[in-house]
Order: sequence, then structure tokens, then C-alpha cells
Amino acid sequence: MKAFMDEDFQLTTSFGKMLYHTYAEKMPIVDYHCHINPQEIYEDRRFENIAQVWLGGDHYKWRVMRACGVDEKYITGDGTDREKFQAWAESLPRAVGNPLYHWTHLELKRYFGYEGVLNGDTAQEVWDLCNEKLAQGDLTVRGIIEKSGVRLVCTTDGPVDSLEWHEKIAQDPTCKVKVLPAFRPDRVMNIHQKYFIPYIAELSRVTGMKIATFGDIKRALTDRIDYFDKHGCRASDHGLDFIPFAEATDEELDGIVQDALEGKPLEGMAVVQYQTALLRHVAQEYCRRGWVMQLHYGALRNANTRMYGVLGADTGYDCINTPDTAQALVRLLDSLEEENLLPKTILYSLNPNDNAVLTTAMGCFQHAGTRNWIQHGSAWWFNDTKDGMREQLRNLAASSVLGNFVGMLTDSRSFLSYTRHEYFRRILCALIGEWVENGEYPADEAFLGKLVQDISYNNAVEFFRFNEVLD
Amino acid sequence: MKAFMDEDFQLTTSFGKMLYHTYAEKMPIVDYHCHINPQEIYEDRRFENIAQVWLGGDHYKWRVMRACGVDEKYITGDGTDREKFQAWAESLPRAVGNPLYHWTHLELKRYFGYEGVLNGDTAQEVWDLCNEKLAQGDLTVRGIIEKSGVRLVCTTDGPVDSLEWHEKIAQDPTCKVKVLPAFRPDRVMNIHQKYFIPYIAELSRVTGMKIATFGDIKRALTDRIDYFDKHGCRASDHGLDFIPFAEATDEELDGIVQDALEGKPLEGMAVVQYQTALLRHVAQEYCRRGWVMQLHYGALRNANTRMYGVLGADTGYDCINTPDTAQALVRLLDSLEEENLLPKTILYSLNPNDNAVLTTAMGCFQHAGTRNWIQHGSAWWFNDTKDGMREQLRNLAASSVLGNFVGMLTDSRSFLSYTRHEYFRRILCALIGEWVENGEYPADEAFLGKLVQDISYNNAVEFFRFNEVLD
Amino acid sequence: MKAFMDEDFQLTTSFGKMLYHTYAEKMPIVDYHCHINPQEIYEDRRFENIAQVWLGGDHYKWRVMRACGVDEKYITGDGTDREKFQAWAESLPRAVGNPLYHWTHLELKRYFGYEGVLNGDTAQEVWDLCNEKLAQGDLTVRGIIEKSGVRLVCTTDGPVDSLEWHEKIAQDPTCKVKVLPAFRPDRVMNIHQKYFIPYIAELSRVTGMKIATFGDIKRALTDRIDYFDKHGCRASDHGLDFIPFAEATDEELDGIVQDALEGKPLEGMAVVQYQTALLRHVAQEYCRRGWVMQLHYGALRNANTRMYGVLGADTGYDCINTPDTAQALVRLLDSLEEENLLPKTILYSLNPNDNAVLTTAMGCFQHAGTRNWIQHGSAWWFNDTKDGMREQLRNLAASSVLGNFVGMLTDSRSFLSYTRHEYFRRILCALIGEWVENGEYPADEAFLGKLVQDISYNNAVEFFRFNEVLD
Repeated sequence: MKAFMDEDFQLTTSFGKMLYHTYAEKMPIVDYHCHINPQEIYEDRRFENIAQVWLGGDHYKWRVMRACGVDEKYITGDGTDREKFQAWAESLPRAVGNPLYHWTHLELKRYFGYEGVLNGDTAQEVWDLCNEKLAQGDLTVRGIIEKSGVRLVCTTDGPVDSLEWHEKIAQDPTCKVKVLPAFRPDRVMNIHQKYFIPYIAELSRVTGMKIATFGDIKRALTDRIDYFDKHGCRASDHGLDFIPFAEATDEELDGIVQDALEGKPLEGMAVVQYQTALLRHVAQEYCRRGWVMQLHYGALRNANTRMYGVLGADTGYDCINTPDTAQALVRLLDSLEEENLLPKTILYSLNPNDNAVLTTAMGCFQHAGTRNWIQHGSAWWFNDTKDGMREQLRNLAASSVLGNFVGMLTDSRSFLSYTRHEYFRRILCALIGEWVENGEYPADEAFLGKLVQDISYNNAVEFFRFNEVLD
Repeated sequence: MKAFMDEDFQLTTSFGKMLYHTYAEKMPIVDYHCHINPQEIYEDRRFENIAQVWLGGDHYKWRVMRACGVDEKYITGDGTDREKFQAWAESLPRAVGNPLYHWTHLELKRYFGYEGVLNGDTAQEVWDLCNEKLAQGDLTVRGIIEKSGVRLVCTTDGPVDSLEWHEKIAQDPTCKVKVLPAFRPDRVMNIHQKYFIPYIAELSRVTGMKIATFGDIKRALTDRIDYFDKHGCRASDHGLDFIPFAEATDEELDGIVQDALEGKPLEGMAVVQYQTALLRHVAQEYCRRGWVMQLHYGALRNANTRMYGVLGADTGYDCINTPDTAQALVRLLDSLEEENLLPKTILYSLNPNDNAVLTTAMGCFQHAGTRNWIQHGSAWWFNDTKDGMREQLRNLAASSVLGNFVGMLTDSRSFLSYTRHEYFRRILCALIGEWVENGEYPADEAFLGKLVQDISYNNAVEFFRFNEVLD
Repeated sequence: MKAFMDEDFQLTTSFGKMLYHTYAEKMPIVDYHCHINPQEIYEDRRFENIAQVWLGGDHYKWRVMRACGVDEKYITGDGTDREKFQAWAESLPRAVGNPLYHWTHLELKRYFGYEGVLNGDTAQEVWDLCNEKLAQGDLTVRGIIEKSGVRLVCTTDGPVDSLEWHEKIAQDPTCKVKVLPAFRPDRVMNIHQKYFIPYIAELSRVTGMKIATFGDIKRALTDRIDYFDKHGCRASDHGLDFIPFAEATDEELDGIVQDALEGKPLEGMAVVQYQTALLRHVAQEYCRRGWVMQLHYGALRNANTRMYGVLGADTGYDCINTPDTAQALVRLLDSLEEENLLPKTILYSLNPNDNAVLTTAMGCFQHAGTRNWIQHGSAWWFNDTKDGMREQLRNLAASSVLGNFVGMLTDSRSFLSYTRHEYFRRILCALIGEWVENGEYPADEAFLGKLVQDISYNNAVEFFRFNEVLD
């Protein structure tokens, strides 16, 4: 029996262990997609206690607690931080086979040096240990980032964001990590949502442009894309309900925008037409600037209306949807390819049944001179599990070229979650190690060591052109 | 090489073997969903021969025989029981990797003490042995149930059922197993089926209520729900083609019911509107009484019209359908949640591609004070296989909390199939044992032993409130 | 650690090794579905170099090269064969976990005796070795076929094909392999495609029949089915976008055909109605002649319009689609079953999510006297991988009867790809060996050895009635 989460955690073969420890383990991290707050990096926030770090915004943990019947008071309510931590510690042990069990203990080991097991009985000693370490020493936001070997982070930012914290970080010579913005225009894409009119008003204010037509929206977004580009942005991101594709004339688009700005209800098809046209526009702009387009789709958000009313979005009430993807995705990529304005793209579906579609569809749009111009992103959100990652890796390997993969990202709201890169690298090395030990690939240490380093770090650096900003 | 189906069958690690033999093996059984006939329990039926038990109604076996080209004469036709048994014995060996191979031999071992292998050559000796044991001794229906450690069974009953056999069993002090009804109003839900009008007439007769409007149907079903509740019912069950969700006014619903009762054809949307409203109504009634709602959906039934004409329903001519589920399911659960009348629910899809949707959707509707108010049911019907169960367990573990799972049910028409609980427990213990031996969970025998017992028995007892009726 | 692709490649247990080496390895091959050119068999083509064999038409390899950023010049363009080979050799090593890695090295071992590893460094030595062997000795098309143990091949042919090369092969006593045509009427089915009118004109010319109505088309196809039947055809094949099912009257069908022949655009539903009726017609004709119907569906073809314009179809720009299948498939099979004219059928979906639907749907239409009258075809195209094959086999085993499976086919355009049968057999034997060693099936060597031989060869011979033409 292997000891619980020892140095060879997840590593099942000698070759896999060698790959991880010799090649993957020490590679730095570029975290090219996450949801952390750049202000907290600039201000080098220090957390008061482990509950703030872990339970302040992590809806993955909230869902486990809710499944265990914990009262909302001790999840997002007015329970004390210590009470919430106790509720979490008591819930966790039942979650056998859940990635949170591993993430939690990896974070305890790597950041706090705690080698025990968290449960209701040990909660007090973990609470004391973590809080002591958080209160003193180097476990501030920047300290955590540096300790994790993170060399570059892309945040997620809206078109109207001033990027002031990115500017301050860039001008701060004491900040060793590169922090770049990523452009996420969801609030301009979602013309059917309540926030659309005020967001357009804000976009108008920020750009100094009058916005009344579809062309105005395009011009304003292009203006902001330029602004982001000047701040070093190289990545966009879209959170789509589904991949849209429906054609429309300029006149139709202007009519849709006019209706929306007048507060008239839109038909479903009008929304899809608008989203298609706008997505195509920004994709072309991304392509012109050499940006990477990330498309996340397939979430059914805010499923629980009552709790959405209480807590708002991103609070653990989302689930996997079943959009029909293949045709729209192909038509979208194809229409951009026909104009020679298809940007580098990373595709992410929340529905794991889409893996095979995405991996084969992207194979139709690769470009000479770049390894995997279109990528299938690492297993996302509910799929960010051992099984989910192995399935994504195996499918990618079988239907595309694993060695070209840009690899892991945290997609996280927490500064402690860089250990997810470790988790991914262990699973990657285990998989390749199993193939080698099973006689399915030659035991070519030099080549596979390099390949593992590429997937861990080099491929992403090259794909996003981060080499231009990293030393 | 492990011996064929020895005491460590399916158990792959020392820890898994320990978990199974020390903790799971001896736990009693509550079989909270099955299709056995309560009359046969009351009358303590004795079977004439093994063909009657095995081949009298088990369409799983019939399908294997049909795939092997066996003539229907020897499946459901006028072949002798001995001939049918021979056909089964000759078909089975080709079904390598089929759960029927394991179920068959588990039943031969546990109930008949036969340690050999069933095939055409051994058919006679098995036939003789089984029939001898069936003819004498304790292998009656009650004897089998007791020998299996079953403490409670929920049958499946229609709203018009008198529950007379449940009453007789309840009044029979010699019957050691609790037998509770479960409420399955499919024939009232399926307004578009031929049986609807006569079934409503029967419902009217049984309740003494005139039924002409949607409100009448609701009142009549509530009346029967009360009747079932007085008979100890704690579970409902629905066999749905798909999860319905379409809103309608009371006037629309009355019009739909009126059309149906007049024998007019209904549009598809009218059927969905009616089913939505009726399902919402009974769900609320279930919630008020603390019942559990079970939703089974995703079967395409009676695919072979010719054979349906010959043999009728439930004869092995059903398959997996591909209904689009996420949105309707979420809207259904959400609409009940908004009214604070969402009952405890167990979700079962026949399509294994839905696993990830179900497990993440249910995470949006958990309730304080209960472990997994919404559950993802154990792998159902065509998925009730080793692979199907492992996938359901792994997905449940990764996206929810495995320790809260209510576990196995037989869903069976056969009294010999309680060994499916053994099969499930072995697979469960094997999986957890693998995680422990692989360093993915601490080797905490006391905690995991309890957790395995919970999933085997305690969780279901608590979830269904069976503790109120069990000693 | 096992050596790279040694004699026990993919074989994980002693029992599996025994099954493969003693029973499966030496069985001959019937390749009942492929895309090779019968003219090349008749003329016993000799290839100039390994690039011609490997890279002349194999879009699997082209996709790997494109994913690696190789310029189209070195894929399908005017680069030299040596340059293309180099580009392939440099791309391959990054494709860890891709079946092409295994196929490539199996072919190098079995046909060229090369035991090394292909990469950029070894490309020259492999190039020299292969070309030397291709230039002299027995590595002509016929030599390769004989060396591979192939006893029978079914090509893929259109209804207007003269089958002249099949005739010549049949009359050539020096050709030891049986080469039968297979009937693939896609160009008559696809009434909405540009090629329809000229193809119908050609069909009219070949049959000497005037074609103006739907009845004319049926008569002409029946005529060609007779022609193929006289040439020994026993298999049809259909490449469908999706399984069609929509009913229509004869008048409607005549109207649709008339519109099509006049070049009028057709509505989507009209296309489905036409395809349903025509597919039903030819299925009935297949049934009358004892042919096997193969249905391949689920590809989204020619996804990249720009490259389709440059290179045309079947050049590596297809992907997996997500058609909704269950209902249409069941209605199609059911309508044929009701008329007692359902032919033996093999179902193939490109979307692996359909596995469970297909395996359970086919269980509703089995026929007495034949083992698996309806079959689930071996993992197709993008699924023709180790994982894809294991999933298809496991699903088939769990939901149907593995021992009845007709097994592998190459579906290939290359004469070197018969090693895919070896790959399949190794994976099959490994799987069964794992079950035996794990105590899930008795270690019955004689029975399982025969079963493995059946799946490797005998079942297909019997299913297609090839025993009538093989010695």
C-alpha cells in the first residue's frame, strides 16, 4: 500500500515517477486563465485565517458542504470563520474520490507543511497551524505566488475595466510575477441580460464613443481590445451558454441592437445572430493581434432561482448543460478560416461528452507553422478531476498530438490552488509512464522528459507568446 | 490468477477485501425499488423449477438468448421449462463480460451451493440440483428473502392498487420482512396512451370521485397518496420517457384533460404540459409527506412493434433513448424549490451520458439537515453492470459526496436477484480499496468501514425514514 | 518494464498472451470493409517508396502532421516524397498515445522487419530500408495481402461501377485472395448534393433505364444490386450524415425526385423523406438476397470549406457530429422488421457517445437462427484506438453477447494496414485475459480460444456467408 499522498502521489510506475520528479516537478508555472483579483496581488494581501482563503469564495467547497446537509449559515452565512472551517472539516472526509480531498491536502502540505489529515477532530490543530503561518512569514498573496513557482498569471477582465491594478503591478519592480489581463466581453455578448444596457452605457463612457448601432459596439470593443493589447493582453476568454452560429445582415444586427438598447425583449434567434456576429468580430480582432481566443461553453448557470436571489452568480448553483455543438462550432471556425482570420483558439466544454467532438473538430483547422493552432483545453470545472483529466488527455492523445498541448490552468479564485498544476503534472506523468512501462512507447527519457516539460510550461509560453515578456 | 468468482470476487486489493468482508458483507439489505409481486411474498410461493424463477419474466436473459439466435419458442414460447433452461445454459457462456454471467453464478453459489459453471454440458446437473432445492427446504419466496438478509422491500404499485397483499403481509406475524408499497402513477401521467381513459375510470371508482378536470385528477391522486401513506409508503417512482417541463394555465390543463377523456388526439406539447403539471403536483404531495421521489427516464420502450404485438410490454424490446435533459430537469427541480416543496429525489437516467449532468444538477438543490437531499441513483438497467456501476460511483464521488449515497436496489422481477447487492458492495469496496492502496485516501479503517456500511444500508434507511418501521 | 512493442504488445496477462499466441495470432483475415482499389490488386501494384504507401492518401497521418504545424507543401503539396516522409517522421514522436504510433511501428516490424523507432533521426535509415524492400521481393500489393494472411477483401463500390477489376481478379487464377465488391449507393442517397444529377444520368446510362421518378430510381438500384449480387457481393455500406426516418407518400417522393432532377433546391425534410424511402427500399433488397447492410453515420464532413476547395473530400477535414439517433434508428429498423425485411445489419456511429444506444437498440431486433442478426460494428475511424476499441468491446460484452461479434475490419485506404487486425486481436485477448485472471470468467482455454477465433475470423465468415466462396 502506498502511503497517503506521499511524494509519489498518483505516480503508478517507475518511469512516471522519474518523469515527474526529474522533469515536471520543478518547471515554473504560467497560469494562463484564472479569476484572481489583481488588486490583491498588488496590495500583497495577507489573509486573516484559512477559512478566508479556502471558504471565502470557493463554490466547489460550498457544494460539498451543501451535499452534506450543512446549513447555509456555515457556508456563506453569518457563521464565524471558525464555525465554517469546522463544517468544512467535518464534510470533507465523506467526499472520498473527490478532487477537493486531494486539493485540500496538497495545499496543506505545500503551503503549511501539514502532513496529517483534515477532519472534524483535527480541525482545531489545522486552524491553528494555518492561521499562524498566514499571520506571519511569507504566506501573503505574492509570497504564495512566488513559493508556487508562478512566473505569469492572466487574470479575467471586462472590456470596461481600467486595468489600473495591472498598471500598478507592471510599474512595481518588487513584484516578481508577470500579471497580464485577459479580455472577457461576456457582458457585451449577452444582449439579452439585464446588465446589457448599463454595461453598454459604461462602455460608451469608457471609450468616449456613442453606442447606438452594431457597428458602434464593434468599434468600441476594438478600441478596448487595443487598450488591453497595450497592457500586454494576449488572451481573451468567453463564457458562452453554447457555441452560437446564425448569420444576419448588418441591418438585422442594427435592429437587434436598437431593440435591446430600447429594452425590448429579444427573440432567441436574434440573440444568437448578435452573438455570432460579435464573436466573429472580436475573433478577427484577436487574430490580427496574435491573441489566443478561449471559448468556454456548456454551463447551465444559476439553476436555483431562489438561491440566485439570495447569493447571486458564481455561488455553486451551476451545472452541466447539453448544448448541441458540432455544427455551430464548425461553422464558426470555418467562417473565420475562410476569411483567414481564425485566431489561435482553445476550446473548453463543460460537458465531457463533447471531448471527442472538440478534439476531432479542431483537427480540421490547424495552421502551418504553429503546433496545434486550435487546442482542446484541459478538463474544465466539474471535469477538473483525476478521471476528467485522464479522459481529456487520453482523448487528446488518441485524436490529436499530446506533445503539443498547452496544458494546465487553475481557473481558480484562490491563491492556494497552484497545486492543481502539480496534480495535473502528476497525472500526466503517470499516464505517459504507464504507456512506457506497458511497452506502448519507447523509454526515451530525453524526448519524453522534454515533452513533459513542454506540456507543463513551454508550450503555453510559446502559444501565448509569453516568451516576449518573460526573461 | 484468481479463481473464478471466489470469496474475493471483484476485490482487487487487501484493503478492499477487508472493507468488504469485515464491513459490507454482513450488512442487511433494504431493497427500496423492485418489481416483485407482494402476493407471492404473502403466499410464500414455492417455484417448481429453476426455469420458472430465472426465465419466467427476466427479459435481461431473454435478450441474451435472442442475441444468440435462440428461437422464441425456447424463450417465451411453448417450449418446455427444461428446453428453455437448456437454451439459456447454452447461450450464457458466449456472454463473456456480461453481468448476467456473474449474476447467474452468484445465484447458483449463494442459493443452491453450486460452485461449478453453467453451460450446455452442466445444464442437467444444475437443473437437478436447483429443482431439488426448490422443491424442499427453505427456498420459498420468504425463505429466499430471509436467507438474503433482506429487512425491507418496496414494491411498485399503481394508484388504483388496493394494497391488499401489503395489508395481509403487515398483519402476518410470521413474515419477517417489511414490505412497503411504492406509488407509481405512470398510467395517470401518460395521458396520450390508450390505457388512460380506462385507468381514470378505475381511479374514479376506487376513490369514489368524479374525474372530469385536471383538478379532479389531482384530488384523486392526492387521495390515493394518502391511502398509500397510511399503508407505510415512503417512496414514489416515475417511469418517464423524458423529464417534462412546459408550463400551462389551469384552463389549458382542463382542456387537455377534457380532450383526452373524450378520446381526442393530443399534441405533443399538450402531453408535456399535462405531465409537467401533474408531476409537479404529486411531487409537492410527496414533499408534504416526507416521501422520496424517484425519477426514472430515458428508455425508448417497445421498439419492436411486431414483438410488442405478440408479447406486450417489458419483454426485452426496450433500449436507451437520448432525451435532452439538463434544462427541463433544472426547471422542474427549480420550480419546486421556489415553492419550498421539492421532495427528496433520486434521479436515474437510462443514458449513461447523462451521469455528469445529473450529478452536477443535483448539486444545485441540496438541503440543509439532510445528506444529499437529491441523489443520483445507482446505475440503472442496461447500466447495471460492473463498468456502469464503477462509472456512476466515480462520477458521483468526483462531483458530489460518495459517502452520502443511498446505494443499491435490485429493480428486479426475480426473488433471486438480491445477490446484486453483493455485486454492488464488492465493486464499491474494490473501488475504495484501490483509492486507499494507491495513496489517494488515508487507510482509515474505522471511518471507511462505517462509510461502506452507510452506503450499503444505513444511508437508505435514514433517507427513506425506514428506521421508523424497522426494529 | 515491457520492451517497446514486443511479442506481448498490449497483452497484460498470461492468459491473454496464451489466447493471442495460441489462438488469435495465426487466424486468417477477412477484411469485410475497406476502401482499397481493386485495380491495384489486379495489377499487383508495386510502390516506389514508403511515402507513397503511407502518405499518398492516409488522412489520419495528414492530420497529425497538420496538428504539428507542418506546411501543406509537405503533406499533400509539391514537396518531394522524401521531404514528406521526413515531415512525418518528425511529427510522429510527439503523438504519444496516438494509434498511428502503434500502427506505424507494427507495419515497420511486420512488413519491413524494422525493429527500431521512427523519428527525424532514423528517417533516412527507415526510408532506405523500406524502399529497398518495396523495390524488390514480395512487397507488391498481392504480396502484402498474402503475407498478411488475408483470404478475402470487400472493397467499396458505387452502383454505377462496372466491377471490371473484380471480374478480372475473379478470372485470374494467380490471385489467391478473394476480392468482392460492396454496394455503397451514397451518391444516389444524397439527393441534395451537386453530384446527384450527373450520377443519376450515369446510373440511367449504365442500366439503360430512363430515370424520372422515385420508382425509376428504385428499379435502377435494384438492377444494380442484382448486378453486384452476380459478382459475389454480400455486403452493402452506407455513409449517412445521420440515420434518416421520415415517412412520405409515393407522390411526395416523386415530387421530390422531380424537383431534384430539375435542379430545384430541396427542403431538409424532403431530403430525409427521400433518404428514408430509398434506404428502406435497398434494405429490403439486401434482405431478399441475404446481404449484410452496414450503416456508418455521424460524420460532419468537409468542415473546412477553404481546404475542401483545394483538396476535395476525404482529405482529413472531417470530424465527429452529434446527430440524435435513437428514435430514427429504432423506427427504421422497426419498419423493416414489421415487413419481415430487415437485413442483417452492422451499425457504426462516429460518435462514441452512441455506443450504449446502438448496443441496446440492436438487442430489440435479433432473429432466431443467427447469432446477432444486428451487430454493433468495431470502433470506427476516430474511435479506432486502443481506448475506443476497449470501450466498444466492453459495452458490447455488457449489453449484448461478445462471443457473437463479427470483429475487425480495416476501413483503410492502405495495403499495409492489415496489422490493425493484429492490434484488435491483441486488445481483444488482453481484455478477455484480464477478466479470466481477475476471476470474472472461468479459465476455460478451449472455449475461450474458440471464441477468440470466432471473433477474429469465423463469425464474420459465417455472418457474411463467405464460407460459400472460401475453400
